[in-house]
Amino acid sequence: MILNTVLDNVIGSITNLDAALLRKAQRRLDSLTKPLGSLGRLEEFAVRIVGITQNTRPELRDKKIFVFASDHGVSAEGVSAFPKEVTTQMVLNFLRGGAGINALARHAGAEVLVVDIGVDYDFDDNKASGLLKRKIIKGAANIRKGPAMTREETVQCINVGIELATEYATVGSVFGTGEMGIGNTTPASAIIAALSGQSVAELTGNGTGIGDKAFAHKVQVIEDALKVNNPDPKDPIDLLAKVGGPEIAGICGLVLGAAAKRVPVVIDGFISTAGALIAAELAPIVKQYLFAAHLSQERGHKVMLERMGLRPFIDLDFRLGEGTGAAIGMTLLDAAVRVYNEMATFEEAGVSEGS
Amino acid sequence: MILNTVLDNVIGSITNLDAALLRKAQRRLDSLTKPLGSLGRLEEFAVRIVGITQNTRPELRDKKIFVFASDHGVSAEGVSAFPKEVTTQMVLNFLRGGAGINALARHAGAEVLVVDIGVDYDFDDNKASGLLKRKIIKGAANIRKGPAMTREETVQCINVGIELATEYATVGSVFGTGEMGIGNTTPASAIIAALSGQSVAELTGNGTGIGDKAFAHKVQVIEDALKVNNPDPKDPIDLLAKVGGPEIAGICGLVLGAAAKRVPVVIDGFISTAGALIAAELAPIVKQYLFAAHLSQERGHKVMLERMGLRPFIDLDFRLGEGTGAAIGMTLLDAAVRVYNEMATFEEAGVSEGS
Repeated sequence: MILNTVLDNVIGSITNLDAALLRKAQRRLDSLTKPLGSLGRLEEFAVRIVGITQNTRPELRDKKIFVFASDHGVSAEGVSAFPKEVTTQMVLNFLRGGAGINALARHAGAEVLVVDIGVDYDFDDNKASGLLKRKIIKGAANIRKGPAMTREETVQCINVGIELATEYATVGSVFGTGEMGIGNTTPASAIIAALSGQSVAELTGNGTGIGDKAFAHKVQVIEDALKVNNPDPKDPIDLLAKVGGPEIAGICGLVLGAAAKRVPVVIDGFISTAGALIAAELAPIVKQYLFAAHLSQERGHKVMLERMGLRPFIDLDFRLGEGTGAAIGMTLLDAAVRVYNEMATFEEAGVSEGS
Repeated sequence: MILNTVLDNVIGSITNLDAALLRKAQRRLDSLTKPLGSLGRLEEFAVRIVGITQNTRPELRDKKIFVFASDHGVSAEGVSAFPKEVTTQMVLNFLRGGAGINALARHAGAEVLVVDIGVDYDFDDNKASGLLKRKIIKGAANIRKGPAMTREETVQCINVGIELATEYATVGSVFGTGEMGIGNTTPASAIIAALSGQSVAELTGNGTGIGDKAFAHKVQVIEDALKVNNPDPKDPIDLLAKVGGPEIAGICGLVLGAAAKRVPVVIDGFISTAGALIAAELAPIVKQYLFAAHLSQERGHKVMLERMGLRPFIDLDFRLGEGTGAAIGMTLLDAAVRVYNEMATFEEAGVSEGS
């Protein structure tokens, strides 16, 4: 498998978390006034944040949620409850602060960065102020008829994510992934079907809310896409190019770039996880840098998370995407850091230890 | 069943949420720029908060977590990994801000109110500044040998919770429940065993972290307590008096008082839920006012929540108590209110609606 140099370099620079540092962080947690391990996964998060940031007094003070937007030719096949122009309309809604991700990012104290990586629309600079213009293609091609993108375009989309991660990473950074793209649960289902070998019907959901008949049609479209393109599950770039999409590739790159820069990443739902999954196929170590926020109502999501050994921690039945689950997930990383930094030790508090 | 007048009056003043108001709140959510229902349980929370507060533009600006502290004579039976004096030591730790609940309450923007309802220690006013002194008894009696409290003391403890709810309720209130009491998973298991009729072994956990041998002993202690006291599962006050404890009764009262004052309550783990469960047995309507934050590692917790039809939304393997899960849970209620109040409608944002 030949990759381009940027990607090779980034993958090569991602390292395992330092076991000695992780033990040191756990020792601090064990000295705090609570029964051993009683804050459960919040303790695991704190330990990993110390390991990722290589800081024994970590702070997550710079939260950014990257919302990668792209169109999908397959939306013409009637796989979504919403018309294609909604991708563009929602990008404008994000920029004006009116979407779900905006409300939840404000809740989390996070900044939303909207990235046009593949929207089939020429945004007017005056109306789309703040948009990060990194368009590689004007929409993925219809995967029922051929590949979503060329291999070269795919690598370019991954590089967009890597570049953004590199540009925005700073001390105290934590990134969240998000996306917008009418029709994009279809490529996400195709990716996990190709990787897992499980049946498409088991890995496909109702997306934004299609009925039973449209669901059967969506399954057929995904099966056709896999047959027409025959992606190589052992070649993650081929998989992305043939049945993926620009925003999924961008998220893959963001995850790789973040891990290279030692920034924790909170991944959102089904589409985001498809991107993270491709990153993990390219560089399995990235899983150590990832936090899976929630379990989507999209059925393939569970299979993706299990494949990465990630367990979500919020159970809210979200199926919106945009990064909404990641925004909430970030707040629990804050909670983990608070516990780690702020609790008193048994010694400080004069509390007797357990047997 | 004869209850005292305060309790009767409070129970009588709790009303069903107004169905028309709930529908109105759901209509607003359905007009916002997201697929119908795609923010899942956050939408359900927003709807209920509108119904509870009777405010179509709700704000949760006054968060209070009540930590009820009490001792338990049964701790002499070796049911906990920690010595009894830790109850007192932790109360002082709460007041100094060094415990898990303090860190997580700061995270949630909540105030911690520590209530001495039954600690077997005379706190020095100078060292325990800020403590709410509502001691009814100096520790519950050893339930392996007889009732925890008299029926009268039990009603007094419930009234403490009712009075606190009444005193602190204000526009924009949300309450969280918490507790501290070495040995108190033992009465909590006894309560759910008596109510559900399931075996004690299935409803008992490792508490703060006891080993296998101590676990078998704990099960025996609970079985003995149920045999010696023979509580009447149809009489919730009798159950509380015989195998409960002061903090569990206080939480029961807080839940009833909050519902009467139309304040949403986020309940914490196993012990808090035991208190809420007794409240729900006394007045089933209170379930409409409750939010179950997390599923504890204590096995009986799941049975309690199912009995109330409540589904937790945080999956962090907590088993600390103190209100730690409630603190995190409150932040998700904030998120729900943000979504409800701040998102743009399809019309405002010029976004096409789905089919």
